[in-house]
Amino acid sequence: MRTGQGYTLAEFVLWTRRSIYGLLVLALIPALLHQFAGFTWLTVPWGVVFMLGTTVALSAGFRTLQTYNRLQEAQQAWSSIVSSSRVWGGLCRDLVDDPVRARALVYRHFAWLAALRHQLRGARAWETTNKAYNIEYRRRYHIQEREESLQDAIARYVDAEDAADILSSRTRALEALNLQGRETRRLLREGVLDPAAYADLQDVIGELQRQQGVVERIKNLPYPRQHAFINSLFVRILCLVLPFGIIGEFARLGIADGTAQVGMIWLGVPVSVLISWMYMSLDRVGENTENPFEGGSNDVPITRICGEIEADLRDMLGEVEVVAAGKQEADIAL
Amino acid sequence: MRTGQGYTLAEFVLWTRRSIYGLLVLALIPALLHQFAGFTWLTVPWGVVFMLGTTVALSAGFRTLQTYNRLQEAQQAWSSIVSSSRVWGGLCRDLVDDPVRARALVYRHFAWLAALRHQLRGARAWETTNKAYNIEYRRRYHIQEREESLQDAIARYVDAEDAADILSSRTRALEALNLQGRETRRLLREGVLDPAAYADLQDVIGELQRQQGVVERIKNLPYPRQHAFINSLFVRILCLVLPFGIIGEFARLGIADGTAQVGMIWLGVPVSVLISWMYMSLDRVGENTENPFEGGSNDVPITRICGEIEADLRDMLGEVEVVAAGKQEADIAL
Amino acid sequence: MRTGQGYTLAEFVLWTRRSIYGLLVLALIPALLHQFAGFTWLTVPWGVVFMLGTTVALSAGFRTLQTYNRLQEAQQAWSSIVSSSRVWGGLCRDLVDDPVRARALVYRHFAWLAALRHQLRGARAWETTNKAYNIEYRRRYHIQEREESLQDAIARYVDAEDAADILSSRTRALEALNLQGRETRRLLREGVLDPAAYADLQDVIGELQRQQGVVERIKNLPYPRQHAFINSLFVRILCLVLPFGIIGEFARLGIADGTAQVGMIWLGVPVSVLISWMYMSLDRVGENTENPFEGGSNDVPITRICGEIEADLRDMLGEVEVVAAGKQEADIAL
Amino acid sequence: MRTGQGYTLAEFVLWTRRSIYGLLVLALIPALLHQFAGFTWLTVPWGVVFMLGTTVALSAGFRTLQTYNRLQEAQQAWSSIVSSSRVWGGLCRDLVDDPVRARALVYRHFAWLAALRHQLRGARAWETTNKAYNIEYRRRYHIQEREESLQDAIARYVDAEDAADILSSRTRALEALNLQGRETRRLLREGVLDPAAYADLQDVIGELQRQQGVVERIKNLPYPRQHAFINSLFVRILCLVLPFGIIGEFARLGIADGTAQVGMIWLGVPVSVLISWMYMSLDRVGENTENPFEGGSNDVPITRICGEIEADLRDMLGEVEVVAAGKQEADIAL
Amino acid sequence: MRTGQGYTLAEFVLWTRRSIYGLLVLALIPALLHQFAGFTWLTVPWGVVFMLGTTVALSAGFRTLQTYNRLQEAQQAWSSIVSSSRVWGGLCRDLVDDPVRARALVYRHFAWLAALRHQLRGARAWETTNKAYNIEYRRRYHIQEREESLQDAIARYVDAEDAADILSSRTRALEALNLQGRETRRLLREGVLDPAAYADLQDVIGELQRQQGVVERIKNLPYPRQHAFINSLFVRILCLVLPFGIIGEFARLGIADGTAQVGMIWLGVPVSVLISWMYMSLDRVGENTENPFEGGSNDVPITRICGEIEADLRDMLGEVEVVAAGKQEADIAL
Repeated sequence: MRTGQGYTLAEFVLWTRRSIYGLLVLALIPALLHQFAGFTWLTVPWGVVFMLGTTVALSAGFRTLQTYNRLQEAQQAWSSIVSSSRVWGGLCRDLVDDPVRARALVYRHFAWLAALRHQLRGARAWETTNKAYNIEYRRRYHIQEREESLQDAIARYVDAEDAADILSSRTRALEALNLQGRETRRLLREGVLDPAAYADLQDVIGELQRQQGVVERIKNLPYPRQHAFINSLFVRILCLVLPFGIIGEFARLGIADGTAQVGMIWLGVPVSVLISWMYMSLDRVGENTENPFEGGSNDVPITRICGEIEADLRDMLGEVEVVAAGKQEADIAL
Repeated sequence: MRTGQGYTLAEFVLWTRRSIYGLLVLALIPALLHQFAGFTWLTVPWGVVFMLGTTVALSAGFRTLQTYNRLQEAQQAWSSIVSSSRVWGGLCRDLVDDPVRARALVYRHFAWLAALRHQLRGARAWETTNKAYNIEYRRRYHIQEREESLQDAIARYVDAEDAADILSSRTRALEALNLQGRETRRLLREGVLDPAAYADLQDVIGELQRQQGVVERIKNLPYPRQHAFINSLFVRILCLVLPFGIIGEFARLGIADGTAQVGMIWLGVPVSVLISWMYMSLDRVGENTENPFEGGSNDVPITRICGEIEADLRDMLGEVEVVAAGKQEADIAL
Repeated sequence: MRTGQGYTLAEFVLWTRRSIYGLLVLALIPALLHQFAGFTWLTVPWGVVFMLGTTVALSAGFRTLQTYNRLQEAQQAWSSIVSSSRVWGGLCRDLVDDPVRARALVYRHFAWLAALRHQLRGARAWETTNKAYNIEYRRRYHIQEREESLQDAIARYVDAEDAADILSSRTRALEALNLQGRETRRLLREGVLDPAAYADLQDVIGELQRQQGVVERIKNLPYPRQHAFINSLFVRILCLVLPFGIIGEFARLGIADGTAQVGMIWLGVPVSVLISWMYMSLDRVGENTENPFEGGSNDVPITRICGEIEADLRDMLGEVEVVAAGKQEADIAL
Repeated sequence: MRTGQGYTLAEFVLWTRRSIYGLLVLALIPALLHQFAGFTWLTVPWGVVFMLGTTVALSAGFRTLQTYNRLQEAQQAWSSIVSSSRVWGGLCRDLVDDPVRARALVYRHFAWLAALRHQLRGARAWETTNKAYNIEYRRRYHIQEREESLQDAIARYVDAEDAADILSSRTRALEALNLQGRETRRLLREGVLDPAAYADLQDVIGELQRQQGVVERIKNLPYPRQHAFINSLFVRILCLVLPFGIIGEFARLGIADGTAQVGMIWLGVPVSVLISWMYMSLDRVGENTENPFEGGSNDVPITRICGEIEADLRDMLGEVEVVAAGKQEADIAL
Repeated sequence: MRTGQGYTLAEFVLWTRRSIYGLLVLALIPALLHQFAGFTWLTVPWGVVFMLGTTVALSAGFRTLQTYNRLQEAQQAWSSIVSSSRVWGGLCRDLVDDPVRARALVYRHFAWLAALRHQLRGARAWETTNKAYNIEYRRRYHIQEREESLQDAIARYVDAEDAADILSSRTRALEALNLQGRETRRLLREGVLDPAAYADLQDVIGELQRQQGVVERIKNLPYPRQHAFINSLFVRILCLVLPFGIIGEFARLGIADGTAQVGMIWLGVPVSVLISWMYMSLDRVGENTENPFEGGSNDVPITRICGEIEADLRDMLGEVEVVAAGKQEADIAL
């Protein structure tokens, strides 16, 4: 997640510079053909381009709405995880009289968070972090989950037996929750927990399972590829056709003015690049909002959120406060 | 569900090639009439076409929004089924002390999944998998439920008596859930389950019933036919009128240029095909998102989801891991 | 609900033919005035018409979104009623040991469905089934609730005393649910039901009450009349102004072409009818989606749904299967 | 709420006639300046007006969507109040054996409804019922809550002590619910209610509190004034600029035609009034949907709803049916 | 929150006057270049500007929808807090027999409100209250939380020990809720509360935790910076390009008129400023709706809401009514 005032124009231009080069080439082609090959007839009527542009804008608008909703849903799920985690911490502290076992329940929760986080940072075929412009941009920050193995991460939180249980499971995060369920049942049987307290803890586990289901869905079911494809296709077609439309318009202005036709078509080049860059950027922003967990700069900052949960819960347990795990680089919270 | 980076242009063009032929014919008609029959007056003013195009784009945009929401709802329902299935597996393992009966509860759950899956793969009059272009595309992959009967599928999971019960019912998936309900009541009466555990299992069954209701609604109540019809109608009218508009615009450019009228109207043909193909594709993509369970390449991958649930739950029971049932072909998960 | 592939063009044209006649007259007026009265100046600039058209399309798009949401909500409520009905059936079969009393509970549920269905089929001032084009179209199918009185319908399901109770109430469907509540309480007092079973049945009754509230709201609170009015008004103004705009555009083409002015304005007539017919159809489709229970061909098929619930629940009780009550005519499920 | 087929054009024109006078003046200014002052250059290019018009239409469309959602939410809340009220009535009749005390519980519910209704009918600074055109329109019907004091209304339902309690509270409706809570607790202590019945009644009270919270939010937090302001501002600017754009277009038609320039600019006047009236009406309709409880003709009909609840619940208690309190005038239900 | 009829035009112009100066400069540049440098060819075809304008309007429309939804969610959360607070007050009064301890529970609730309020008023990098135009506007009113420390605020409500506990916590508001949880458990153990009453109070605490999670999410996760950035970028580009488009259109009108070219381009300047000011205002209004808790004039009035909760609950406890804390200045409720 970007945390500053927002992007600067320079940063944005840098990020999209490869596309700008391409668009410049596209814009130069009709100008060169007009000027040197005499293909003055090679234009597309502006009305056609305009209709295309309106359609692309509409289509991109609806896409933005939909990817925004995906992001919102991901944020809501993690916000619920934060709430439930705090409830979990408070209940463990207050309901489990034995502080060692209370601590174990809280730390096993951190293991669940780590397992879930590592699972969400896995790569998917449709994600975009490996595109050239994103790789470059990603040099500015580090994705903690790609630098530390899950094994190392959960070793900090649970004993070897639990760790082995979690790591050997097909569904690691889920297994961590199941371990919590078994432990609470054991505490109930041993009389450490009374039935009401047990029910409260079970409710939290159920809620965490539900939220895990939500974030897994967002991770595993991409924004429909057919929608993403047709949007990008439209934008590309528009970028292809636009320069031929713009040169026609500018040439016409030149004729009307009677003086400066040669100059006018060259004035069309920067305008053409500007406009097609705008549509391309709209598409790019939509694309980068699609997958809220891939480790991009616009994602839900799950590393930071987990770090804050850990700090909050340790604080509740009375431990000396630790530095939040996900520290921030370059105005980007991950 | 498409799982790769997305569609390639080649693949998309191939999929829509029949329409492209048709659009090419439509685009040639006015050009031929202009050139050889001298019907130079046979044009439609571009403003009219433009207004039509804007309306079609808007109408298609709202339709995309609505069919996307159908898809989302189907994904959410199946995501809840995944969560509830795992909860079911965990509860059966942990609460039912007799491993044979726990296994029976889990396997009967697989029978429910199979019954539900087969029910969702049934054909409906408004579905589109039987359209020529989809039949062709479907050769790339196999729909498991159309190759294996439900009888064979559930024989793997439940004994003959339960299988007969399920197969003879009008509402097979529901009957499987009812069997689960009766079995848990029996376990409660026999003292295998305590009341709290029984209540937990009942809650899961209730949740599964609710989600079954949601997916059945999406299956049985189509995207309103009047909306689908009027959208397709608009797109067709636009594709019909567009070439007459474009030829007028290009002819006008030719006149303005003073030199190349004959050539210009032929330049209008590819532009006309391109633009009308775009609108047609928008309509096609909307159409293919309407029914998320018919077995198309953009559907919710229910076969794979069920396979993964099966693998997860068997893993929980400590069984040797099996290959997930719905294996993937050609970047398409079903 | 339409159940086939969808509407055919012929059917749609037939349904809207009255409007087409009107639009044809509107389109002929300016052509006749141009040709015979020499009112060649009587045009509206196309830009004005275009702006109007864009506004109408937007306004119609948002209306479609809203009426679609009404329809969706109605579908969801009835889908929940289906789910809850099946749960009711299963609970009655499994929890009530006396089969006669179990059957009575299930059959009283059918009486509730009948009462609710009849209530939803009542006419409201803002509904459109009595418009000429809908009356004509409605000859193709029968609305069961308008042919059989509620008295006859519930006589099949409950004894005379209950029937009298229900029919004499101001809120018949609600009274049927209240009877269920009283009966379950009696069963609890008599010890036929244990408290947990009683609570389960109460939960279902509560859910049915909630869903009844939802469908009654959709029935009794129309799509805001001010929105419906202003939309139709816009479409009518557009249809009025459009021919004057189109004739101007075509006349201009005629002048530019230099040869065929007389012919061109007549070419504008079919184009004008086509375009205004499209907007009019958009409005008509929106209007026909507004009220999902009035008995039109695009409604939620409540008669069929009730028939299927009845068949499912009788099947659960082990009764010989009956033909589903709402049989289908002409691709329309009611 | 309008209950008839909808508005008639005459009624709508009458309602907006003040604006029409204003728009007529605005449309005459450029025509007079052209004709008599020779300011033929005083026009705005149509492209500029068109762009403005599209923006206004979009902005008005989104506003309509949002105010519609406010209305929907208000309808849903009141629909839930209806359901909960009926549940309350049924529970009181069936669970409280002493008919006098059951009746008291039901009648105190009417007092709550009255208090809530009066609270919702209070005026807010951003409401529009006091605008000239609404005052005039409001002569057609009566707002019961402005003619009868709350004191008189609740005196019909509760004894003097309860009435005093309610009227002296800062939060009158809430106090009525609190009284219900205390009474049910008293009934529980006295053994009139068993714990399960008590819990059921508490659930209903909780639900009523929640719905009261929803309707109070809609009443007290207006549609954001900045959105409302900018929308109205846009419409006004458009209405101001439009006549200068239209006169330019019509004058151009006159020149092209060569004959009738003088006449043409006067033809622009009615067109200009028509178009700007349409945008102004769109804004007006949006404005009148913003506040669903202020007593306008498009509001949620809370008086009638309360009257129907009262009739339903008295019917349940076996009382002779009374005429529903909110009787209807001129197709408007309040 | 603005509470009056809405903004006045004068106020709005004053608020945006800095932008107007800038837009005026931008509009003068092409006019000056035309007039004095003879750069009559330096225009942008209007079609290009129009397409840009439509895209910007669409993009701004969707943004408005999304920021409006953020605001709505914030309002709903606070409305739920109001409802739950009242329930809390009613339960404390009625269920806790010892009035001193009841009062303590209610006053600790005020401490929670204060902690939450202060937390929400903290600054975030992406908030806009520190922009020049907002600082100026903010002189009209006072943000209570920036003038009184949390320490002072909660000292009014809780004893020193609780205050220290809350202030030393990382998550102050949460700690206040945890204190409530511990106190209710103590009351349960001491027999002051019966289990049912305890459960009711726990439910309210759970609900408050949930709503706190929602408002914290809205506070801590901004409207996606990439969306905000691209929107503002589009508006700026439009404002840059628009004057060059408008001057071309007006110059053309001048040529057509044959008389007044020099005058016409100067007529374009105010029109240009007007139109670009409109788009800029749309962006500004969107920006000011993004963050509903930063202390701006369009925010959710959390100070006033808290003041009203306090007054309501003190009224319930029978205390002499106090003046609501958040008194209103200049039609703005905070």
